[in-house]
Amino acid sequence: MLRSLRPYFSPASGSLEVGAKEDDDAAVWRAETGRVVGTVDTMVEGIDFRLDWPGYRFRLLGRRLMAINLSDLAAMGAQPRHALISLSLPGRLRLREVRDLYRGISERARAAGCTVAGGDLSGIDGPIVLTAALFGTIRPGRRPLRRSGARSGWALAVTGTVGRAAAGIGLLLAGKKPTSTAERRWVRAVYDPQPRVEAAQILQSVGIRVAGDISDGLYREIERIAQPAGLGAVVDADQLPLDADLRRSREHAWSSGLMESEDYELLCAAPRPLLEAARRRLRHDLDLELSIIGTLEHGRGIRVHVAGRLVVLPGLGAGYQHFR
Amino acid sequence: MLRSLRPYFSPASGSLEVGAKEDDDAAVWRAETGRVVGTVDTMVEGIDFRLDWPGYRFRLLGRRLMAINLSDLAAMGAQPRHALISLSLPGRLRLREVRDLYRGISERARAAGCTVAGGDLSGIDGPIVLTAALFGTIRPGRRPLRRSGARSGWALAVTGTVGRAAAGIGLLLAGKKPTSTAERRWVRAVYDPQPRVEAAQILQSVGIRVAGDISDGLYREIERIAQPAGLGAVVDADQLPLDADLRRSREHAWSSGLMESEDYELLCAAPRPLLEAARRRLRHDLDLELSIIGTLEHGRGIRVHVAGRLVVLPGLGAGYQHFR
Repeated sequence: MLRSLRPYFSPASGSLEVGAKEDDDAAVWRAETGRVVGTVDTMVEGIDFRLDWPGYRFRLLGRRLMAINLSDLAAMGAQPRHALISLSLPGRLRLREVRDLYRGISERARAAGCTVAGGDLSGIDGPIVLTAALFGTIRPGRRPLRRSGARSGWALAVTGTVGRAAAGIGLLLAGKKPTSTAERRWVRAVYDPQPRVEAAQILQSVGIRVAGDISDGLYREIERIAQPAGLGAVVDADQLPLDADLRRSREHAWSSGLMESEDYELLCAAPRPLLEAARRRLRHDLDLELSIIGTLEHGRGIRVHVAGRLVVLPGLGAGYQHFR
Repeated sequence: MLRSLRPYFSPASGSLEVGAKEDDDAAVWRAETGRVVGTVDTMVEGIDFRLDWPGYRFRLLGRRLMAINLSDLAAMGAQPRHALISLSLPGRLRLREVRDLYRGISERARAAGCTVAGGDLSGIDGPIVLTAALFGTIRPGRRPLRRSGARSGWALAVTGTVGRAAAGIGLLLAGKKPTSTAERRWVRAVYDPQPRVEAAQILQSVGIRVAGDISDGLYREIERIAQPAGLGAVVDADQLPLDADLRRSREHAWSSGLMESEDYELLCAAPRPLLEAARRRLRHDLDLELSIIGTLEHGRGIRVHVAGRLVVLPGLGAGYQHFR
C-alpha cells in the first residue's frame, strides 16, 4: 500500500537526502543552523472529525492534519521543513480514499514549503487515527515565539477573524447542512483551516516575541499568555474580529468567539507600537487583519468589557473543548 | 492530564531549549551539524499488542514504543536525540496506567540518550494508539547506513539472536502463559525488545554502509538489501543465530527464524573482512554476537542451504506479517 502512495511523498531533493520514496528505515535530511522546532498532533475520528459531516472528504482530512500541525509551528515562528506522517486506517477504507488523504497532506505541505519526508501505515480495528510530526527551523538570529515573557501594559492582538470555526462546528453537531454563504464559510473554517505560517514570521520580523495559536480557544490562549507572567487581562468585546454575519445573527456572539473559537489564528502580546507595525506589514504583505483586542494588566483573571459592563468569565481551561 | 505527566518529559537542558514541560505549542532544540534522521512509528492495540497478554504492563508498552522507533534510528546509524510522543487513549484508562506508559517511554529514551521533547494526548473511542516520532543525528563525517548499495560477493550478517520474538508471539497468540525459562525469554523478546543503537554505530565505525533492521522479518530484510542492487542471496540455515532452545525444541526452527522474525536485530552486508572487524568490536564492546549467515550473489531470489539441500523460498513480502 505504502508503495502506491509514493507519488505523494517528497523526492529526495533540497535538504531531504533520503525520503519515504526510498526503502529505508527512516528519512534523512541535512541539519540546518539555528533552532529546530518539533511538534506532533493527532486527529481521531469521532473526536476531532466525523466522516458523516456533509461534504467532508478525505482530501480535506489530509489538509486539516497538516494545517493543525503547521499552525503549531507557526505559533513558534518556525519555517516548516519536514513532515513525518503516521496513519492508522481501518480495513473499510478504499485505496482511493487513502490516496485522497495523502493528496491533501501533500498539497498543504508543499504550499508551506514542507516536505513529506516519511510515513508509516498501520491497520486499526476502530476509528481512523491520523498523526503528523513536523519539524521547522527558526532563522539564525531570530528567537522562537513563546507564550511566556509578556509584560503588564502590553496589548493583545489576534490575526484574521474569530468565531467561524465554532459556528461551523455548531452547525455540524446539530446535523445541519450549511445553506447560506455565511454558513458555508463557517463550515469551511472547520474543514480547511489556514495556518498562519507567513503571518507568524512577519510578527517575529517586527520584534514580537510572545504569541500562541488560538485553536484551544481565544480565551484559553489569553490565559496561557497572561498567567506565566502573573498577569490578568482586560478584553474589549467590541474589538473582537468576529465574523460579520455571526455578529449580526447571534446575541452574545462575542462570547462564542472568545470562549469556543477553534480558529487557527494567532494571538500575540507586545507593546502597542510593535503591534501597529505588524498590522501594517500583515495588511500590506498578506491582506490579513491584526486586531488589538485588549491589554495585559497587573492582577489576576480576565475581564471583558461588553455593552458598558465589565464581565468576569470563568477560569482556566473553560475555553477548551473537544468536538463532542 | 498532560500536566500530571510532566515528570516524564525531559527538562530543557543540553540541546533542548523548550520542552513539553513548558506550555508552548511545540518543542525547540538547537540544530546540530551533520545529518538528521527522522522516523515515526505507531503501535495499535489489537494489531501490534494486546492488553490481555499475560504479564503485559503499561510500562512495557511505553518501552516498546520507544524501542521500535529507536531501532529505526539504529538501522540508519543515527544517535537518538529527541522524541515527540502522541497518544490516543480511551477513557477507560486510569491515570496510573498512563503514568506507567510514560515511565516506560521516558526510561527507554533516557537510556538511549534521547529527550522526550514534546507530547500530545487525544481521546479515542476505540483501541489504544501510540505514536512516537524520533530524531537522531549522524556524526559529521559519517554516512547513514542504507539498504541500498550492496554488491555481489558481500557477506550478510545479523546481530544477536533470531527467532525468539516469533516464538514468543506464537505462545501469546495461542493464549499460553510462558512456563519455562526459554519461553519467558521468548515472550520477553516481544515485550521488551532491545534496539541496537550502539551496535549500529560500531558497524558504521568499521566502515559498514549497508544495513537495516529485521523487525519485518529477516528474510524480508535480505530481499530489501539484495533487490535494489539487482542481486540474489544464498543463506546457510545452520549459520542462523537461532535461540538454542528453539533450535532444540522445534523442527524447521530455521524457517521460523528466517521468515517470521519480529526481532529488533540488525542485518548488514559488507565485504567479509569488514564484518569480521565488526564482530570483534561488537564482542569486545557490547558482548554482542554478529553472525555471518550468507552471501549476496548475482541472479535473483533467495536460496537457503538446509540439510545438504538448496531450498528456494517464496518471494517478496512473505516475511512480513502483523500479529494477527
